[in-house]
Amino acid sequence: MSLIWFDGGLQAGPIALSAHDRGLTLGDGVFETILVCDKKAIWREDHVARLQAAASALGLSVPLADINAAISALSEQGDGYHVLRLTLTRGVAARGLAVPGLSPSLVATLDPFDPELMFQPVTLVTSFVRRNEFSPSSRMKTLSYVDNILAAREAARSGSDDALMLNSRGHVCCTTIANVFVLRNGQLKTPPLKDGVLPGLARQKLISAFKVSEISLLPADLLQADAVFTTNSLRLIRSVTALDGQALSQADLSVQKAALRAVM
Amino acid sequence: MSLIWFDGGLQAGPIALSAHDRGLTLGDGVFETILVCDKKAIWREDHVARLQAAASALGLSVPLADINAAISALSEQGDGYHVLRLTLTRGVAARGLAVPGLSPSLVATLDPFDPELMFQPVTLVTSFVRRNEFSPSSRMKTLSYVDNILAAREAARSGSDDALMLNSRGHVCCTTIANVFVLRNGQLKTPPLKDGVLPGLARQKLISAFKVSEISLLPADLLQADAVFTTNSLRLIRSVTALDGQALSQADLSVQKAALRAVM
Repeated sequence: MSLIWFDGGLQAGPIALSAHDRGLTLGDGVFETILVCDKKAIWREDHVARLQAAASALGLSVPLADINAAISALSEQGDGYHVLRLTLTRGVAARGLAVPGLSPSLVATLDPFDPELMFQPVTLVTSFVRRNEFSPSSRMKTLSYVDNILAAREAARSGSDDALMLNSRGHVCCTTIANVFVLRNGQLKTPPLKDGVLPGLARQKLISAFKVSEISLLPADLLQADAVFTTNSLRLIRSVTALDGQALSQADLSVQKAALRAVM
Repeated sequence: MSLIWFDGGLQAGPIALSAHDRGLTLGDGVFETILVCDKKAIWREDHVARLQAAASALGLSVPLADINAAISALSEQGDGYHVLRLTLTRGVAARGLAVPGLSPSLVATLDPFDPELMFQPVTLVTSFVRRNEFSPSSRMKTLSYVDNILAAREAARSGSDDALMLNSRGHVCCTTIANVFVLRNGQLKTPPLKDGVLPGLARQKLISAFKVSEISLLPADLLQADAVFTTNSLRLIRSVTALDGQALSQADLSVQKAALRAVM
């Protein structure tokens, strides 16, 4: 069962959305997906802060009271594991790409989440779709997600679980849904945001907990690592077992997994 | 007044959309904007063919009968000048980026269009947001339009009418809403699609009517041209009068304008 927050209250079923809402017509908005564990919205403040930062960069106004009311009302219904999604759009406008301040639309949903998906190993294929480090949107969770969708479809076609995305210079960025870390000789490395990397919250938690070098990586760095893993807010840490069909080295990641669990 | 086609029929007011429709949540879909002139949908077959091509590239199924019914029903209401927009999304899905075949959602709208906007001169500013020629989405009208929005906002802030977008190598692509042509020594040039260029219909009409070189262009090529103009399906041909505050040469474009008018 899915629970919906729209127009300031809980509801079931479809929402009454304007056909001119720019979330629908232009992917003009931002989103967050929050893990809810026994009614607790994990990393709630971090998610709201990231949403605010991305909204500000796009020039969207942020209805903070409505956002907090949505998170509270939905997570209150979240026994066991759920995923709470916040979708904030610029709102309804007449035609034109650059329009002055609008009243934003907030849609939030609560859906069951299978905890088996956490810590699950993952196989990657390198996508032919590159990330665009020349746009600030590569560092935001905007609603314009079609490049990630194209890459995810490519992964599915190739029989891999997810796609590794490079930027225009061939540097490693992230997967369609997660950040990438390599472990080599006891040292953790992850690509810097400027390479076109989403500022993941689990990524940030690991950077706070360990000494991590934020440094540009090439696909060869993954093949030569002692371990490669991905991080995100829902599936947490996943060992990468293969890249483009080539098996990767599997060092123990229990310390990293425990550190992430400890801050949830 | 705005007319809406949704769920197979005409309606007014908001649409009853699922909060999980992937057009809203992920910009997962494609669109077209069609000029309607005295009930005639201009370049109707070309717009539908381009929508179909982009939808196929994304793996969306295309409800052709519904699309044609929407165009017919809406353009029938279009005395004078209107813009008909088709928005086709992948439909409703549970979580996950790569999902198997869904039933797509079609939303179409008809809104008045001010014919004064046609052939209006335009000033451009070079955007710091680049187009991503490494993604097929740079050659499609997908709902994931946030990079164009960022560039259009930048243009508005700088007091320009539109933004010139380059690709990751610094080659000229197009503006946020239009293709770019240069005229020099009687010869027309426009960037090739592979540079990350939207396959505009007015662009294609000019290529059919004249000898046009599809060749990569640098910003300097615009500064040295006898004339620079933009094309799209609604505003048709617009003389570019300035780039980054520098006035551009203004050769006569009446032949090109007449040729486009002749095929409408």
